Amino acid sequence: MTRQKVCGHVARVRRVGRIVFIVLRTFEGVVQLTAKRGVVPDDVWRNASNLGAEYFICVEGKPAERQVARVGPEIIPGKIEVLAESKPTPIDLTGKVEAEFPTRIKYRYLDIRRPEVKAIFNIRSSLSKHTREFLYNEGFVELHFPIIIASATEGGAELFPVKYFDRQAYLAQSAQLYKQSAVAAFGKVFTIGPSFRAEKSRTRKHLTEFWQIDVEQALVSKEDLMDLQFRLVKHVYEKVAEENESDLEILGVSLEPPKSYEKIGYEEALNILRRKGFQVEWGMDFGSDEEKALCSEFEDPFFITEFPASQTAFYYMVSREDPRYAHRIDMMGGGEYGVEWSSGGLREHDPRRLRERMREQGLRPESFGWYLEMFDYGVPPHGGFGMGVERLLLTMLHLSKIHEAALYPRTPDILVP
Amino acid sequence: MTRQKVCGHVARVRRVGRIVFIVLRTFEGVVQLTAKRGVVPDDVWRNASNLGAEYFICVEGKPAERQVARVGPEIIPGKIEVLAESKPTPIDLTGKVEAEFPTRIKYRYLDIRRPEVKAIFNIRSSLSKHTREFLYNEGFVELHFPIIIASATEGGAELFPVKYFDRQAYLAQSAQLYKQSAVAAFGKVFTIGPSFRAEKSRTRKHLTEFWQIDVEQALVSKEDLMDLQFRLVKHVYEKVAEENESDLEILGVSLEPPKSYEKIGYEEALNILRRKGFQVEWGMDFGSDEEKALCSEFEDPFFITEFPASQTAFYYMVSREDPRYAHRIDMMGGGEYGVEWSSGGLREHDPRRLRERMREQGLRPESFGWYLEMFDYGVPPHGGFGMGVERLLLTMLHLSKIHEAALYPRTPDILVP
Repeated sequence: MTRQKVCGHVARVRRVGRIVFIVLRTFEGVVQLTAKRGVVPDDVWRNASNLGAEYFICVEGKPAERQVARVGPEIIPGKIEVLAESKPTPIDLTGKVEAEFPTRIKYRYLDIRRPEVKAIFNIRSSLSKHTREFLYNEGFVELHFPIIIASATEGGAELFPVKYFDRQAYLAQSAQLYKQSAVAAFGKVFTIGPSFRAEKSRTRKHLTEFWQIDVEQALVSKEDLMDLQFRLVKHVYEKVAEENESDLEILGVSLEPPKSYEKIGYEEALNILRRKGFQVEWGMDFGSDEEKALCSEFEDPFFITEFPASQTAFYYMVSREDPRYAHRIDMMGGGEYGVEWSSGGLREHDPRRLRERMREQGLRPESFGWYLEMFDYGVPPHGGFGMGVERLLLTMLHLSKIHEAALYPRTPDILVP
Repeated sequence: MTRQKVCGHVARVRRVGRIVFIVLRTFEGVVQLTAKRGVVPDDVWRNASNLGAEYFICVEGKPAERQVARVGPEIIPGKIEVLAESKPTPIDLTGKVEAEFPTRIKYRYLDIRRPEVKAIFNIRSSLSKHTREFLYNEGFVELHFPIIIASATEGGAELFPVKYFDRQAYLAQSAQLYKQSAVAAFGKVFTIGPSFRAEKSRTRKHLTEFWQIDVEQALVSKEDLMDLQFRLVKHVYEKVAEENESDLEILGVSLEPPKSYEKIGYEEALNILRRKGFQVEWGMDFGSDEEKALCSEFEDPFFITEFPASQTAFYYMVSREDPRYAHRIDMMGGGEYGVEWSSGGLREHDPRRLRERMREQGLRPESFGWYLEMFDYGVPPHGGFGMGVERLLLTMLHLSKIHEAALYPRTPDILVP
């Protein structure tokens, strides 16, 4: 049989009489090395006996004639080379003892070696890949918008200040204003990039630094937007189910691509919540509990459309027919694991109305500078959405909290590593 | 003939006797509308006569029987709808008068409507797409590394400070330390993301916010790294040449995918420079002038390998054979338009040697916290590179300066829009 070479981290060493069994975690999966004294060269046997957990080794050997190992392919080592030694690890990587989350994060560089953590990020990679693939195929151009911005343009207080040489600047909360500026030139634009919110929220669905799929399109209807988002999510689910089979198996998740979507009005959402015993009044926005209650009512992804204008950001278009409402559309999904995936809708492109909306919301139009000026130069009707990468992953993979979906999560409490 | 609908910005309106000619810039290209009094309905003719530049209109009409317009397909309008009006624009978008760069940036939202600017970003989109496609196919997993980091880990002073709630934090200069942490788990990792340098450099090749292709791989040789980078650049050139033909035509660029690459040692680079009259001494790094002089010597991309250890960051591996050198590899290319595209090489994974290197460079090992600790736990030999997206675009498209390669560039002077 052909000699082969495998490299990886030593996951477990077990000695039973004259045999040393080594479980090796390679970058692709798991391999067992079986070194029997007398069968393998003496130095190889001694070498095998002295290995510790997380040593990184390369092994040359041949497949065992009888493949009896349950963990993966079994190899009889002919040569073992230690490329890097390891101290005993501060967290258990074998899956026997689950460390507390803060400890796992402290040693995140070890935590991400665990197959069930790696699986999440293999899937995140697929999600990013297939989101872009879908959008490229739909004719969208990928743009990169600035992270450092000059002013608190969205009017929120939840901004991280940056010292930009002698000036005060901020980290962008979203690509919103910039993607709107690009849609007039390109028609269909998107980005997947980092966004920042200085919110002190300590919930299972908030991060201070997160990645967002930001999409904006000219001449789009509300139906187009819902359809586009549904098809995007469906495509991603289908592709992940297809390409990440072993990752999903490790996570114990069976992924069901959504078959259709539903849409309800804001009033209907209120009614559902009231039936479930929530005290909700017209005009309020939905919090985590309300979102969860709504999600549990729907098996498929669903959209809530037409929110109270007072509850939506100034850049949304207010209904010309009934100005109590704005053309905002939220997408939720995931059933019992559900959260809000995206927020979007039609934007206001009429500079006069935009100015009015800013004033109504207590904002100073003058402070918007270029953003407001731009609408004096033929900006076509447009709309779009921002969909959270970690939010989507949270529900897809039934994660306990959003922090699990970020390689190095950032929260009000976590800044290191 | 079938009626068709086109939408876009009015680029030019010209009236010749009873005919109004309108050049319409659609999202895909250019169309000419020809409205002859008596031929088109009266209200359409009046409407056409009253259009101004940058009005956004939708037109229903039929193709002219004799297609005589030189700008693109010619349409006889049957209906014109104005979706958004425009004031006269502060910069000329017809290509007749080139505005100064600061003015173009001030009105960047208009500037990006110009076909020659759009073409750059269509190509940037392709470049990102095909870089990722190439790396996915090579088995790399796409990860997203943190932007807000706790400490000045790379030891440089060129960091932007961020106020992170009550703590001091910084914007990441690169994914360097984090991608190294991930390579031990995943084997092959990459990201394309924003990086930040608070350098007051006002050159044609510096931005304070730029996007970088960051790649890291375990068990890699210097030859592997050079080969990977060459094949990546070649793939991108080939795909852009294939898919962005009309964009390249607009820019007047004929793209020649590189056929091979060369590699030279640091000493050889010194010799070339000396022959060209540069006063260079062993141990110095290359500045812009030196880079340019070196690039002009090579038609194909080339690598400079083995830099003086004193000139390379602490995380590079120092040669075991000759400790005056570190295994750093810079990639340059583009001939007369050339700049440095990437910097990379083999990394030090031995914690003892890493500690020594830090001390040699006047850094305090204690301040590296998790990064240094991580090497106590079986980190395999690895290497990688960081390649500048805007740098590559700068040379590919023969841009006058790197600012042209960023949608909303950030420099010490530019923070708005």
